[in-house]
Amino acid sequence: MEIGMVGLGRMGGNMAQRLMRGGHRVVGFARDTKTLSRLEEKGMVPATTLQELVAALEPPSAIWLMIPAGAPVDEMIASLLPLLAPDDILIDGGNSNYKETQRRARMLKPYRIHYVDAGTSGGVWGLENGYSIMAGGEEAVIEKLRPIFETLAPAPDKGWGRVGPSGAGHFTKMIHNGIEYGMMQAYGEGFALLRRKEEFGLDLHQVAEIWRDGSVVQSWLLDLTSAALAENPRLEGIAPYVADSGEGRWTVAEAIDLDVAAPVITLALLQRLQSRDAESFSNKLLSALRNQFGGHEMKKT
Amino acid sequence: MEIGMVGLGRMGGNMAQRLMRGGHRVVGFARDTKTLSRLEEKGMVPATTLQELVAALEPPSAIWLMIPAGAPVDEMIASLLPLLAPDDILIDGGNSNYKETQRRARMLKPYRIHYVDAGTSGGVWGLENGYSIMAGGEEAVIEKLRPIFETLAPAPDKGWGRVGPSGAGHFTKMIHNGIEYGMMQAYGEGFALLRRKEEFGLDLHQVAEIWRDGSVVQSWLLDLTSAALAENPRLEGIAPYVADSGEGRWTVAEAIDLDVAAPVITLALLQRLQSRDAESFSNKLLSALRNQFGGHEMKKT
Repeated sequence: MEIGMVGLGRMGGNMAQRLMRGGHRVVGFARDTKTLSRLEEKGMVPATTLQELVAALEPPSAIWLMIPAGAPVDEMIASLLPLLAPDDILIDGGNSNYKETQRRARMLKPYRIHYVDAGTSGGVWGLENGYSIMAGGEEAVIEKLRPIFETLAPAPDKGWGRVGPSGAGHFTKMIHNGIEYGMMQAYGEGFALLRRKEEFGLDLHQVAEIWRDGSVVQSWLLDLTSAALAENPRLEGIAPYVADSGEGRWTVAEAIDLDVAAPVITLALLQRLQSRDAESFSNKLLSALRNQFGGHEMKKT
Repeated sequence: MEIGMVGLGRMGGNMAQRLMRGGHRVVGFARDTKTLSRLEEKGMVPATTLQELVAALEPPSAIWLMIPAGAPVDEMIASLLPLLAPDDILIDGGNSNYKETQRRARMLKPYRIHYVDAGTSGGVWGLENGYSIMAGGEEAVIEKLRPIFETLAPAPDKGWGRVGPSGAGHFTKMIHNGIEYGMMQAYGEGFALLRRKEEFGLDLHQVAEIWRDGSVVQSWLLDLTSAALAENPRLEGIAPYVADSGEGRWTVAEAIDLDVAAPVITLALLQRLQSRDAESFSNKLLSALRNQFGGHEMKKT
């Protein structure tokens, strides 16, 4: 089928390529003309304005948004809305908060524009291996998009599905990312312990490779850990500073809303916050208190 | 080559079978004659006593212990010691504490009996898929055992290796299990959140299946999660009670010894302890305190 793609960064650009390889006609919009011409060489129809994008698509059209979550999505919807017609479909493939997705779907309903959330996992490997896609929205609309999902997924019948109504896709992707936080932290701690046990002189890359085949902890994240350790066995030059892009904190807030204890996912998020807090005021206070009650020496800056 | 196998339970029995399929001669000892005859049918040479076991092996012999960690290993070594001769090899494939492994290797050294620790992961799927094996001990001895490791592993050159001196194999396996605790807890919490979000009516088995292909959280543990949810989508009849077999608590103790913060692995262990504490005294005390200071109602048993 044909699809418009808004946002041709690392994720969107690769997805456009995978769709074209699958025989779909992709009309792509990006502000960066270099990106446009790079993908035009690979068969994409370039659009330098949203007007061009919509004009190049046969109505009713389907447009996939692959742009940063939050305000950019609202702004893009506001820009597209005057150009769209009833029965057009907008798909948000980014990591939007599921509550905002529900709000956007409700807002678009009177215009008879269908809004689909497609939580997308797979990172930069998705181009070759396919993406895992959790879709939320009306059943008939998702059915219309089936050829797109079947191409983006690792196999037509694998790694994708409609998980529920509007918002359910982004909700499921949010929890997916929460689990990812916990898993990453578990690997991080385990490898830190292996490294610190100097008497054994362990080769961390070798251990990761051994675990990749046949062990209980084998996973794609372990494959990536092994690749990172092969490139840089001592992780030199990497600051111990871990960013986050929101899904972890939303998961924790949701856990509290739902009265569900999610201690490990929560703690994995807190470890990331702490990793950025080199000036830890709480640690300073503890040091000061030990000095107050026991005269223990304080380490100075 | 040929090998003696002591302990033919779920793990040992499957490993004996995989070794026989790989063309090795296996002499097996177990107290249970039913187990012996079941494996005899598959080509194993049965031994009803340790004397028989040792007599049936060409010296210098290699004997693999696949028995519960702790006292049983010391008792088995004490029983075997009078029957062994210099240059014989004992391999501990169980989940022994690495410090006990180091002690046993030192104890056996004056007898010129070589002690190898082979941390083994793979569970009941190992028979078909192979085991991940982290070996510790003298290089030349592990080299002699190469044909055994190559058969037990998923492939001759994959999933196994000598990671270091005596104890390093069990140490690495211990950390592996610590990571496993964290990963399992992360999945547990994530699926609990999906389940509690009733408004979306998510099908947990479907979500697990979607994640298995192309997602960042794909792993063997996720494959097992999906299998468990396919069999029993609501996990009916399963008590929320999680046992442990020691490696998690050793990992936490080791983390403290090494001055390495391993908060998520630690918390995953604590969650297991809590899962068994239906009469939580701390929760009772919190309820009593809320009543004391604020007159809040206490829920009665």
